Order: sequence, then structure tokens, then C-alpha cells
Amino acid sequence: MAVTDKAGWTAAIDGDRLWRSLMDMARIGATPGGGVGRVALTDLDKAGRDLFVSWCKGAGLEVRIDRMGNIIGRRAGADDGAPPVVTGSHLDSQPLGGRFDGAYGVLAGLEVVRALNDAGLVTRAPLEIVNWTDEEGVRFAAGVVASGVYAGRFDLDYGLNLADREGTTTLGRELARIGYDGDALCGGYPIAAFFEAHIEQGPVLEHEGATIGAVLGAQGQRCYAVTVTGEEGHAGTLPMALRRDAMVGAARMMDGLNRLAFEFEPTPVITTGHVQVRPNSRNTVPGRVVFSIDARHPDDGVLAEICVKALDLCHGVAAEGGLQVEIAETSGRDTVTFDPDCIEAVRAAAARLGLACRDVYSGAGHDACNIQRIAPTGMIFVPCKEGISHNEREAAAAGDLAAGCQVLLEVMVARAGLA
Amino acid sequence: MAVTDKAGWTAAIDGDRLWRSLMDMARIGATPGGGVGRVALTDLDKAGRDLFVSWCKGAGLEVRIDRMGNIIGRRAGADDGAPPVVTGSHLDSQPLGGRFDGAYGVLAGLEVVRALNDAGLVTRAPLEIVNWTDEEGVRFAAGVVASGVYAGRFDLDYGLNLADREGTTTLGRELARIGYDGDALCGGYPIAAFFEAHIEQGPVLEHEGATIGAVLGAQGQRCYAVTVTGEEGHAGTLPMALRRDAMVGAARMMDGLNRLAFEFEPTPVITTGHVQVRPNSRNTVPGRVVFSIDARHPDDGVLAEICVKALDLCHGVAAEGGLQVEIAETSGRDTVTFDPDCIEAVRAAAARLGLACRDVYSGAGHDACNIQRIAPTGMIFVPCKEGISHNEREAAAAGDLAAGCQVLLEVMVARAGLA
Repeated sequence: MAVTDKAGWTAAIDGDRLWRSLMDMARIGATPGGGVGRVALTDLDKAGRDLFVSWCKGAGLEVRIDRMGNIIGRRAGADDGAPPVVTGSHLDSQPLGGRFDGAYGVLAGLEVVRALNDAGLVTRAPLEIVNWTDEEGVRFAAGVVASGVYAGRFDLDYGLNLADREGTTTLGRELARIGYDGDALCGGYPIAAFFEAHIEQGPVLEHEGATIGAVLGAQGQRCYAVTVTGEEGHAGTLPMALRRDAMVGAARMMDGLNRLAFEFEPTPVITTGHVQVRPNSRNTVPGRVVFSIDARHPDDGVLAEICVKALDLCHGVAAEGGLQVEIAETSGRDTVTFDPDCIEAVRAAAARLGLACRDVYSGAGHDACNIQRIAPTGMIFVPCKEGISHNEREAAAAGDLAAGCQVLLEVMVARAGLA
Repeated sequence: MAVTDKAGWTAAIDGDRLWRSLMDMARIGATPGGGVGRVALTDLDKAGRDLFVSWCKGAGLEVRIDRMGNIIGRRAGADDGAPPVVTGSHLDSQPLGGRFDGAYGVLAGLEVVRALNDAGLVTRAPLEIVNWTDEEGVRFAAGVVASGVYAGRFDLDYGLNLADREGTTTLGRELARIGYDGDALCGGYPIAAFFEAHIEQGPVLEHEGATIGAVLGAQGQRCYAVTVTGEEGHAGTLPMALRRDAMVGAARMMDGLNRLAFEFEPTPVITTGHVQVRPNSRNTVPGRVVFSIDARHPDDGVLAEICVKALDLCHGVAAEGGLQVEIAETSGRDTVTFDPDCIEAVRAAAARLGLACRDVYSGAGHDACNIQRIAPTGMIFVPCKEGISHNEREAAAAGDLAAGCQVLLEVMVARAGLA
């Protein structure tokens, strides 16, 4: 553990215990490449949830499951009617994700509670540790839905009725299937503050030699599903000149979208991560391709301009290829700015602990971006190796993770007060 | 039925009965769009096979299943030790295929037998009707494998051990699963001739107003699996300049391959029909894409030149994008020329029946292209609507199908002789 100077500490988190919890959790859905594949609402997600619930109970927390399947572990405060100070993140992962994205923020919250238990400290306001359902949005098209419902951004019905890509089930049905269709209120009550600890998922902290990122906000994001429709045909007999090949059209769109990104400064990120080809047979000219566009930029106005150009580009390619194109906006969020007091609390805790800290923006979306709508919110970033995330090779140093966890304890206790 | 002039007929096929057989078979695996999805060695394929076997037995044929799961219905000849005259095609289909591609050639063979039964005619040489296993090559990467083993082009072990795309099973295991792992010899005995009736799958006959195509041969084909490997990363945080995006690279390759086709005259067909993206998540920069290339041209030398350029193009795009690329040739065949006597027999039968006939080349590969290695072989094409095939909308006129079936009867009987 890199943090050894205890001056000014409220209670010491146990970096080894935090690391062990992370590694124990990472066994559930472990992938051959050293990562984690624990997609939301699968049996593996259920196994991860069950382990977390058992740990919460072991740490003396009162556990409740809300209507969106969020798991909330509550540590009573001396003034238990006061709005809780909340932390948390997500235990679900990408299909070939890393061990730290999400799991760190949940288990850092758990470690804060364990450390306070060890120190025999009780806060004035209660503390709550949350595992938000389906942050990644792999199966149900849109991520951070459960925190979105909690924050009043979406209706409960919308969240529960989200269909998976194959249209065979819904988020609500899958919650019931794994036994996490709880009946506790999903939001709608006051919370004092929300803090989320997370690996940066980008290269800035490592590059700058900083251990803690005080997160100022998150860039705006627009996501689209593009459906390109042409005409199926036999790969051996349909002359090239007569083809309306949906894959060739989609490929030209993806190429154009990538080039479009480099026309702007600062450069946005534009990604096609998901592609579905129909009928997807070597012998057949594809008749339909559905692909995703994920575009992000720190300036909402510029992002809007990029998206107009991106959609125009797709329509232009389709027209040239005799293809039809339908573009649906699947999710999006404006630029997010976190609470100045929460940001300052992170900076102050890092300074008190002697940790190198710098302000950063989040390139990714987080549940915290939803919660900031209803409560003062901040995030604590720690470095991850080479900025690699959403990848089995995602890595983070135990010392950095411990440092971020200690900062989390400090800001939560500062906000909740000691009894 | 369009053919009504019986002058010179040996025995009249029943066009209505042929049509009913086709429609009955098309119910197995019927798709909402009016097509058929009866992929080889699935439960639906088994159901189609079972129906065919029951029809063969009903027509008095002796049925055997060979080591590659080919179903062979045999009608004894007066000289039953003579090499048989064989016809057949395939009952498997594309995932979203049509009702006639393959099934027509099998059921036309059956109708020939039924018509000879009705007329009480016995041929000198025996007749055999074959359903070749897995012509389409949807699941096991390479098509026409079973006829290839029959013709000695592939070893039996190679055919049975072909793995499916997911690597979870083999062709041989799937044959056993559906109960079609027969023990009859797969080839290795003399056959007198092979004829295959098939829809054209191209626009030429319809365009020229011909009912019968006397098929001269088939264009050469080369198939590749291209694996593009980059690096996964978070779609929100990995800067564009640092990305090694396998999907962007693959898209540029596909675009380039399509443009490459138009540089040649006559124009080849180059198709990417199958695309697999890993991890295929909206949120993640793709780390790996595998896609197919299917290139065909009537001139082997030109095809070789096209393939060199295609592979160079892929390597060039990969190098520019910091990507790795591996290209494996998955299947291929040289230009095929059918037997002059068989071609002439088709022309002569059409002329005798008063059917407009023209010579055509096959754009697609067929089992007949394998069988021509070991026996005099010919094909009979009939028009399909707008040349559309490998498509649920594939259509053919009952009269044209009946005409082609009557030609098949004539050429088979001419070859086998009447007792």
C-alpha cells in the first residue's frame, strides 16, 4: 500500500483487505485473458451480487433491494433520520471487461464501512453503499439506467420494460429471474451527498504522475443505433452493379465517422462498438446491418454539431449506395459538472493525505452523472495502467486503489460528521 | 404447368406434384418473410431429411445414408450392376434463404422417379437421387464439403472434423446428433453421369426469356477469413489518436475490396457476408474483427490477380491503422467446365420439348462442380425471379420448374437407357 502517512487520517482503510475483496469478486466471471465478463442480470451478475450482499451483512449493514434491483447496504448513523451520505458504483462489467471498472467503487465503499467498524466510529448521518444495476448497458442498449431511475431521469416503467437486443426479455423480467426484483423505493428520498470512486479509464493521471483525480465533470455523450437496409442476394451470382449491399454501406459510414472525429479540435471520441449483420452468412450479400455510434465531447454545442454531421454522413452514404438508413438516438447526456464542494472535499482530503491530486474530466459516463441531478456529487479517480479499460488487460495498482479508498472514507465522514 | 406439348416425351413428370412437394418441404423452416431457414445439421434440417426419406421410400427407392450423411435414394435398373445415373442437390439452406435453392434439384429428382413409376418404365442402369449434406457451408465455414468427400476432393476425416464457427462442435458430431451418421460408402464407386437441376440464382435466363439454361461450367471462387486484431479500449476515454480500432480497419478493408471489384472487366463478385466483432459492445473499441471475403470470376488467372490485390489491400490498411491482420484461405475452387456430352444432352432435350434454351455459366458453386471430377456431369438451370436467391424473396414459376424437371427426366433416361 502506497499510502503510509497516517497524519490526519480519520480511520485507516485496509488496502490488503480491499485488494482481496476485489480479487475475490473478480473470480466471478473471470475470463481467460485475466479480465471479467459479468454482464448485468446474467447468472454471473447474480453470483457477484450474492457475494456483495453476504459481505454487506457480514459488515453489519442493513441490506435492501430497490425496484430497479439496486442493492443498498446501510450503516446506521447517530442521527439515523438524517439524509444518508451515499457511495457506490457497479458490479456488472463489459463482456470482456476488467476487474476494477465498477467493482472498485462498490468494494471501496464496503471497505470504508469495514474500516469505520474496525475503528469503532459512528457517523452522525447514516452511510449507504450502492451497487447500481446495469451500469454498462451491454444487454439493454442504454447504460446507467437504474441510477437514472433513482435520480428521476427515467420512469420506473421505462427502466423495467427495457428490452434486450434480441427482444426476448426485459430488464425487469431478468431482475425477477435472478431474484433481485426488490420492493424498496428506488430514489425519491433526500440524500446528503454522493461520492463514487472509480478507475480513471483514461491515461491522464498516470501520464501526470497523480494518484488522485478530483473529477470536475463528464463529457457529453450521444448514442445512436443505425439500421442500414439493402437487399440480400447470392454472393456468387448477383452482379456488383446491381447490389444494394448493407455491409458495404455500413463500412463506408464507419470509415467516414472515424475520419469525421479528426476534423474537430479538441478531438471527440466516436466509436462503433456493436455491429450486427443479417443474415451474416459468407455466401450472402448482407441485407441489413445495425451498428452503434457513440460520440462524446466535453462541449455540448460542439457535440451537437458533430452529431449533425455524423447523421448527414450516414444519410449521404446510404443514398449513394441505394440503401435505406434509419437512425435512432438510443441514449445521451449533456455535459455534467459536479458539485464544487464535493470536488473541493476530494482535493482537500488528498492534500491532507499527502497524495498527488489533479483535476480531471471523465471521458466515460458514470452513475454519479445521474445522481448529481438530485444531490451534491463528486467522484474520485485513481490511475489505471496505460488508461486501458473495457479490456481484460485493465489493471490498477493496489496502492493507488487504497489511496482512493482512503480519500473516499475522508470525504464521506467529513460530509456525514462523526457522532 | 407451362409444358404441355408431349411430343417426344419419355414419361410426363407431374408439375403440380413437384410444386406440392416443394411447398411441403418449404414448410420446414419457413421464415416470416416467405423463405426458408433450414441450416445444415440443425433440427430443421433433420426434419427436412426425414420427410425426404419418407418420400423416397414411398416411391419405392432403396435409401442409404453414407459416411458424410448424404442421403441416396436408389431406383434399381434392369442391369442393376451398371454404374448408376445420379441426380441431386441439397435440402439445406441459408439462414434466410429461399424455397427453391437446392430443394428443387432434390425434389425434381424425386419427381423423375415418381413419373417413371407412373409410366411403369424401368431404366437399364439404376438411378440415384442424392441429398448432399451441407451444401451452403453456413455453419462449418466451407460449403459443398460432402460432395467434395464423395468426389475424393477431401478426406472423410477432414469433412467429419470440420468445426463450426464457435468451435463447439463438428460436422461429424452434428450428423450423429441428428441421426444421419450413416455407414454407406461416400463415393469410391463408378457412376455413369451426374445431373443437377437448380434455379439459376442469377438474372440471365429471365432477362433473355429462356426457360432452360444448359450450364457450361462455373466461375472460380476463393474464400478467405480475415482476422483483424487491434486493441480493446473504453469508447469514452481512449483518445482517437491512440486507438487501434479493429472495426475501423475492417470497415476500410471492406470498402476497398468493394472498390477493387470495379477495377476489372468483366467485373468479379467480391462479397463480405460474415462479420464477427469482439467484444461487440457499444461501449468498447473493438479489439478484433473476423470477416469473410468471397471472390469469384470466370477466369482463373484474373481471379488469382484479384486475390493478390485484395490481400495486399488488407495488409496495407492494417499497417496504416497499427493493426495486425491474418488471412486464411478457407475454401476455393478453380473454374469448372462441365462435360460436353451432358451439356449437349440438356440442349437436345430442351429442343425436343420445344423449350427456349441458352448456354449459361454458373455464378454460384454447386455440388455438381465437385462431382464433375469423377463423372460426366451437367446442370440444368431454370429462371428465378429477378435473379434473386439467398433471400427469402427467392421465387420461381411452377411452369419453369416443371420444364426443368422434364428435361432432367429426359437426360437421365437417355443416359441410363430404357430396359
